[in-house]
Amino acid sequence: MAWLTARYLIESEPELIEKRANALALEQSVECPLEAIGSQFVLDEIVARVDGIKELGERRYLVDVKIATATTGGEPAQLLNMIFGNCSLWENVRFVDLDLPRDLLARFPGPRHGMAGIRELVGARERPLTATATKPQGLPISELARLCRTFVLAGVDIVKDDHGIADQSYSPYAERVKACQAAVVEASVETGKPAFYAPNLVGSPRALRERARIARELGIRVVLVAPMLIGLPAFFDLVDEFPEFVYLAHPSFGGAGRIDTSLLFGKIFRLFGADAVIFVNYGGRFAYSQEESLSIAEALRALWGQVRPALPVPAGGMLVERVPELLDRYGPDAMLLIGGNLLIAREHLLERTREFVTRVESHRFSKTAAPAAAR
Amino acid sequence: MAWLTARYLIESEPELIEKRANALALEQSVECPLEAIGSQFVLDEIVARVDGIKELGERRYLVDVKIATATTGGEPAQLLNMIFGNCSLWENVRFVDLDLPRDLLARFPGPRHGMAGIRELVGARERPLTATATKPQGLPISELARLCRTFVLAGVDIVKDDHGIADQSYSPYAERVKACQAAVVEASVETGKPAFYAPNLVGSPRALRERARIARELGIRVVLVAPMLIGLPAFFDLVDEFPEFVYLAHPSFGGAGRIDTSLLFGKIFRLFGADAVIFVNYGGRFAYSQEESLSIAEALRALWGQVRPALPVPAGGMLVERVPELLDRYGPDAMLLIGGNLLIAREHLLERTREFVTRVESHRFSKTAAPAAAR
Repeated sequence: MAWLTARYLIESEPELIEKRANALALEQSVECPLEAIGSQFVLDEIVARVDGIKELGERRYLVDVKIATATTGGEPAQLLNMIFGNCSLWENVRFVDLDLPRDLLARFPGPRHGMAGIRELVGARERPLTATATKPQGLPISELARLCRTFVLAGVDIVKDDHGIADQSYSPYAERVKACQAAVVEASVETGKPAFYAPNLVGSPRALRERARIARELGIRVVLVAPMLIGLPAFFDLVDEFPEFVYLAHPSFGGAGRIDTSLLFGKIFRLFGADAVIFVNYGGRFAYSQEESLSIAEALRALWGQVRPALPVPAGGMLVERVPELLDRYGPDAMLLIGGNLLIAREHLLERTREFVTRVESHRFSKTAAPAAAR
Repeated sequence: MAWLTARYLIESEPELIEKRANALALEQSVECPLEAIGSQFVLDEIVARVDGIKELGERRYLVDVKIATATTGGEPAQLLNMIFGNCSLWENVRFVDLDLPRDLLARFPGPRHGMAGIRELVGARERPLTATATKPQGLPISELARLCRTFVLAGVDIVKDDHGIADQSYSPYAERVKACQAAVVEASVETGKPAFYAPNLVGSPRALRERARIARELGIRVVLVAPMLIGLPAFFDLVDEFPEFVYLAHPSFGGAGRIDTSLLFGKIFRLFGADAVIFVNYGGRFAYSQEESLSIAEALRALWGQVRPALPVPAGGMLVERVPELLDRYGPDAMLLIGGNLLIAREHLLERTREFVTRVESHRFSKTAAPAAAR
């Protein structure tokens, strides 16, 4: 029988680490004391086992636990349950990495388009991409559509809804998506450059499906979804049911304290089907370190069995002036997302957005830049 | 226009707290700088506002933020987005309380049965209730059914699946649920005492719906669901579509680091429809304090508009010997859940379970016990 490996960072006194590691293995498999188990099959094939304990520093240990893949039933929700169900409730345990054997990985088609598919869609084979957002919510639909038009005239590749824009009275979903999509298509025809509108899909599963249908009917190709908000299994279902969309994943509600961000946003979002992942860039409104942000980008682009590489989308309080620095850090295989810093230009929005696009598209990568990742 | 109030605990230098509180209000509403906003309507009716900052201790502040209810669209997923979307990604911010105005609260039917409905179902008007779990996963169906039978013969009120039991090859869902339900019904007829089997529903939304249908056809009355695992909005949908079930909520995957456990398990699970909530008891396998565990129970039972009180179910490494102490702490309006500590009795499982049931049902509450909560 096959086993997956989950890696945890455990804080513990040295004399207790072995006991804690074994307790975690029980918690994540049979959830009962060993002495309660009379079945040899369960002892041999179901009980998870500690596969290695490595001291990282004072009172910090990396613990590898082998979990029987049979316990996941090959299902996405149950996989989460087995790798980080009850032990998410344990203090001093952090879930930091995941390694799936080939047969289990094969149950996850991952991104249906991935980085390569997005490049093909926007017709940009090598350059970094640009994205921006219509905001703030509360604006009338005509105003949101006007923002879409301006952004596309300035040359951005993808215009997404702000993630707070849902189905509110002041901009109902169906009407808004129709108007914004029309504005983007029209402006894209004028410029002759492909550009895409990504509406935000948020809601309970039934509402999501209905909104996805509306988007499909309108010819939408890219959608924005926050997987932790709608629930990772619901995200998996949505991608499965509407594989024609490029999924741009948003980190909202994703601040689970005890999962490494590179694992959650880099690996798990990708595994569940995100083609591109928006994440917090260092030095913006959020306290992410440069290392943390770059690790997410790396995880998204890394070779991983049959799972297509996804496109990193650093965001969160970024300035147009930082474009050169960010591109040198992330390399060409990234999409920079700047929203608020464009909008403060107000009546000069078109010019400011053009400046953003020009800086990104004309950037000359220095020799010390990150190497282009696997495509 | 109405406003809801979300309360956050922010760690900050004193000179920065006002700035950080205002930044949080922007993040949770318009997500852009104020100077980017030209619309008076947005400034007046959409931008969230800080409603109070209270120093709690050194560098710790309780911050109340008023958020326009219109931004939630009256939808469960979007409510989560507005109250704890992006700011879940902020370090040093903890989401600690939520107050919904009446019109928004009315969009949430909450528990369809609640504590009173469960008492009616099991025919116990005042006494504390008992629950246990079939485990470990990996046992054949016949063995799980035999455990069900033994537990019911011993008099427990509810026998649930272990939360790790899903739809695995060694105990496929449909077959297992049929056998366990039959065993519980049969044993309950023999004893003459009502008892209920609660299968675990885990999966992506489409799988969940299918499994709920199977459970309904088998006459199942109580189900086990981990709302954070399947996603809170998917949980909301499930309760809405299958209101006849009593929902026993499990905390798996619920270790979000930055939400108070009493808010998440006590208020949000209840708001989304949990009739009873399993949570970590103090002094077991998890490092919850007594105060934390009791706060969850209090939040579940507190008066809250039209939202029915839910039943607290402390669990997690509890011993039969602790029953008197726990009942004195939680009071009679609780269901004690003990699994592993019964199962280690192996061939004496019936007797050990009887001891558990007897201790619970014959407990005489001391005068200093917690007062019976609102029913």
